[in-house]
Amino acid sequence: MQDESVREFAERRAKGQERLLEAANLPMRRFLALDGDVYAAGALSRKEKELLGLVASAVLRCDDCIRYHLQQAHGVGVSRDEVVEALSVALVAGGSIVIPHLRRAFAFLDELEDAGA
Amino acid sequence: MQDESVREFAERRAKGQERLLEAANLPMRRFLALDGDVYAAGALSRKEKELLGLVASAVLRCDDCIRYHLQQAHGVGVSRDEVVEALSVALVAGGSIVIPHLRRAFAFLDELEDAGA
Amino acid sequence: MQDESVREFAERRAKGQERLLEAANLPMRRFLALDGDVYAAGALSRKEKELLGLVASAVLRCDDCIRYHLQQAHGVGVSRDEVVEALSVALVAGGSIVIPHLRRAFAFLDELEDAGA
Amino acid sequence: MQDESVREFAERRAKGQERLLEAANLPMRRFLALDGDVYAAGALSRKEKELLGLVASAVLRCDDCIRYHLQQAHGVGVSRDEVVEALSVALVAGGSIVIPHLRRAFAFLDELEDAGA
Amino acid sequence: MQDESVREFAERRAKGQERLLEAANLPMRRFLALDGDVYAAGALSRKEKELLGLVASAVLRCDDCIRYHLQQAHGVGVSRDEVVEALSVALVAGGSIVIPHLRRAFAFLDELEDAGA
Amino acid sequence: MQDESVREFAERRAKGQERLLEAANLPMRRFLALDGDVYAAGALSRKEKELLGLVASAVLRCDDCIRYHLQQAHGVGVSRDEVVEALSVALVAGGSIVIPHLRRAFAFLDELEDAGA
Repeated sequence: MQDESVREFAERRAKGQERLLEAANLPMRRFLALDGDVYAAGALSRKEKELLGLVASAVLRCDDCIRYHLQQAHGVGVSRDEVVEALSVALVAGGSIVIPHLRRAFAFLDELEDAGA
Repeated sequence: MQDESVREFAERRAKGQERLLEAANLPMRRFLALDGDVYAAGALSRKEKELLGLVASAVLRCDDCIRYHLQQAHGVGVSRDEVVEALSVALVAGGSIVIPHLRRAFAFLDELEDAGA
Repeated sequence: MQDESVREFAERRAKGQERLLEAANLPMRRFLALDGDVYAAGALSRKEKELLGLVASAVLRCDDCIRYHLQQAHGVGVSRDEVVEALSVALVAGGSIVIPHLRRAFAFLDELEDAGA
Repeated sequence: MQDESVREFAERRAKGQERLLEAANLPMRRFLALDGDVYAAGALSRKEKELLGLVASAVLRCDDCIRYHLQQAHGVGVSRDEVVEALSVALVAGGSIVIPHLRRAFAFLDELEDAGA
Repeated sequence: MQDESVREFAERRAKGQERLLEAANLPMRRFLALDGDVYAAGALSRKEKELLGLVASAVLRCDDCIRYHLQQAHGVGVSRDEVVEALSVALVAGGSIVIPHLRRAFAFLDELEDAGA
Repeated sequence: MQDESVREFAERRAKGQERLLEAANLPMRRFLALDGDVYAAGALSRKEKELLGLVASAVLRCDDCIRYHLQQAHGVGVSRDEVVEALSVALVAGGSIVIPHLRRAFAFLDELEDAGA
């Protein structure tokens, strides 16, 4: 529940992902590959797809997923205003139970932007 | 559970929305206003926001919301390829339980496009 | 997805409940008994408990559960204003995906009140 | 919300699936393939995997998914007692909001068994 | 996942809320205002509305929301028996997956009551 | 969000469960009893029921529930391959938002198996 730094998240996620890949059976590995491929640029840009992933993560209230897509979005050049607008759609669609996730999302985003400055 | 035509949906929704507005108290009316305003163009375009609303609706598995955003997206010129890519993100994020909603979504989209031809 | 009349709902539910009780194993039957008992008056009144059940049903987006609690609430004398306020809490907590359920809820409530006039 | 016969469901699903496959992009098609493969016999039998799919469908409250897994389970020889026990786990895990789905599940199961008699 | 003291929660929440208000766009700020207003006394009392918020939070499994409504409910004089009855409705409606949240809720409630003694 | 050791989880859970039982009213206590009984061997074995509980927990994304059922499953002799196959069904049914829970599940499972070696 505590805020987690960008570095802590990245390390925890990398370690967990490595363990997951070791433990995964074939359907899981195919799912994980698909989960990467579906965000590739196509009719929609990388930026747009990361925002879609961010909104899906926010309304489904998955903090790790939110952090991951914030990081990816930041990496492909999505602006803060775009992130805020996407999250405001998620808030209205998903309701007040999304709020605690937004608090954590903005703490993470602040740090991402500071690190990138 | 049956497919509903675009016209049937539009009529049912309009009637329901009218009744809702009559019955709503002030917080509900403010919420409904907000639910319109959050999709206005800003840092993100109308098209992009409708796709965000579509993905949120799909992962939260709300058929009426999916239909509404398909209609809005179609109205502001979102292409079929863009809709399909957005829904493929929703499918991977939300899992196989999204599939029945995709079946209904494509039936609705087919009809929207035929009507607009 | 279509509106269902109070009578149609009551008949469909009674028939389904009868079949469920026939098919249920012991844990299911105990659950069903518990699902009745938890709404008995205690520190909270019957009215208050039906409103809690209504809000739980609305944020979890279960139309049959909403209809059932609307009917029960109406039966124990909950006023329309109380129902509307409870549903407005559900709307803000659960977000715009609750809206289609509110449309159906108000259609059902209108009919309940007309029938009771 | 009405009960749907086994035949009606099968026809509606087949038609929807055909349309979905036509409309799907590559990630969707890969997901659909994976959704079939993950239920193949392995360390767990076909029967056991259908019961897992049934419980996942019930707690996630997806009627079409429940019907599909009931049909598959019936086809590979899962007994009624096994289905009932699996659904009782789903009821306790998922709570009373699962009840309307159980009512529809048992109507469908009754018909499946009658047809198979 | 660990228990969090009332003071720790209050400080973390206040800090997060401050950051959220700074980062929020207009629709978010309007949503946050609405999220306060909808709990004002009207046809239902402050006490009753906090219990509705508590049940919505519990069935949607949002620990921060549960803590917030426990604190608010305690502040307006809701008794322990009323909280317990409301949470028992949430447990039956939402199922066994609500249990871990109840464990944390009661730890928080115990501390709230000790602090207020 | 951090990984929790098997011992830490067991202690935290035992303490929380003790407090819950003290605070619980009669419907809660009956629910808790039912939540134990529904996993008893019957038409389905203890192993099979724990796998059903595991999949329900995973698609509903309840880490404490996942850990509990992993522990129970391990205790009654479910093999790692069976756990992995069950979790792969959960992943495909529930989508990519299940992934962070799988990472934590495998860390817990690794430790369970090491402790049992």
